[in-house]
Amino acid sequence: MSLVLSPEAQDLLFREARTANTFTTEPVSDEQVRAIYDLVKYAPTAMNQQPLRVVLVRSPQARERLVRLMAPGNQAKTAAAPLVAILAADEALRSRTATFNAALQVGYFILGVRAAGLAAGPMAGYDAAGVDKEFLDEAHTVLAVVNIGRPGPDAWFDRLPRLTYEEVVTTV
Amino acid sequence: MSLVLSPEAQDLLFREARTANTFTTEPVSDEQVRAIYDLVKYAPTAMNQQPLRVVLVRSPQARERLVRLMAPGNQAKTAAAPLVAILAADEALRSRTATFNAALQVGYFILGVRAAGLAAGPMAGYDAAGVDKEFLDEAHTVLAVVNIGRPGPDAWFDRLPRLTYEEVVTTV
Repeated sequence: MSLVLSPEAQDLLFREARTANTFTTEPVSDEQVRAIYDLVKYAPTAMNQQPLRVVLVRSPQARERLVRLMAPGNQAKTAAAPLVAILAADEALRSRTATFNAALQVGYFILGVRAAGLAAGPMAGYDAAGVDKEFLDEAHTVLAVVNIGRPGPDAWFDRLPRLTYEEVVTTV
Repeated sequence: MSLVLSPEAQDLLFREARTANTFTTEPVSDEQVRAIYDLVKYAPTAMNQQPLRVVLVRSPQARERLVRLMAPGNQAKTAAAPLVAILAADEALRSRTATFNAALQVGYFILGVRAAGLAAGPMAGYDAAGVDKEFLDEAHTVLAVVNIGRPGPDAWFDRLPRLTYEEVVTTV
């Protein structure tokens, strides 16, 4: 047993966790999002920079504005998800480090959603300039849009293949 | 209880996990690294791109070459850690997406090290061009260097402050 993390936690966060494409109507509360943030905030960023910012899209008007900016294949699920979060980088410094750190934190956030027993549907297909203009100020840039909720019927595509250890890891 | 993940797993991965600055001499085996990779490979990347590549620096000669390229404050701990991993992005496409996805995977890898009950010491202070030249081919770029092992004496600095929920999350 090389891993200390329990098999249940391994399944919850990694092995059984999947990107959801449909959701039930069960709401996602602010308390759940707070619990997610208060867990993942401890994961490290270079120089403790913490550039991630999160915009929760809750009003029907805001949801409608966002759906129009999503790629066609992402519109129906973004309209239907119980909660949609825009994940952005505070790029006040416009540095390579800010972008790197914010991407780290996007990964932590996705695992945090799973830690809350919810499914995440992260999406990269949207009009990024439009999302920046509609939802963020000039110091922020969108990095991902994430649908959050309990998986609905036919929520999963087939698991895509993963690279093998030998393809990824070399030793010198 | 907004989180489903067990309190033990929360502590292992996030709340009690800390960047280690000293290590014991206990080795980190290839089996442990394989178990880490075979867990974190399931975490998502946009378009399943999986650009992360890992170079394990195991030979004394390679370790010496790497230590010389680290920032002065990182040299002693990089020389002493049981294992040092160079995390790199396969940037064959040189795309923004590859860099973003690789950063996501750096975050997953750090949590995977913790899932193995080990401490990670990720570092951003090094001669990046030198590491690329000494350890990677032209299609790859270093993203982080990570010391891995069991924490030694005085391994921890004080925990740096984290942003509050209100500073990070807004609602529209």
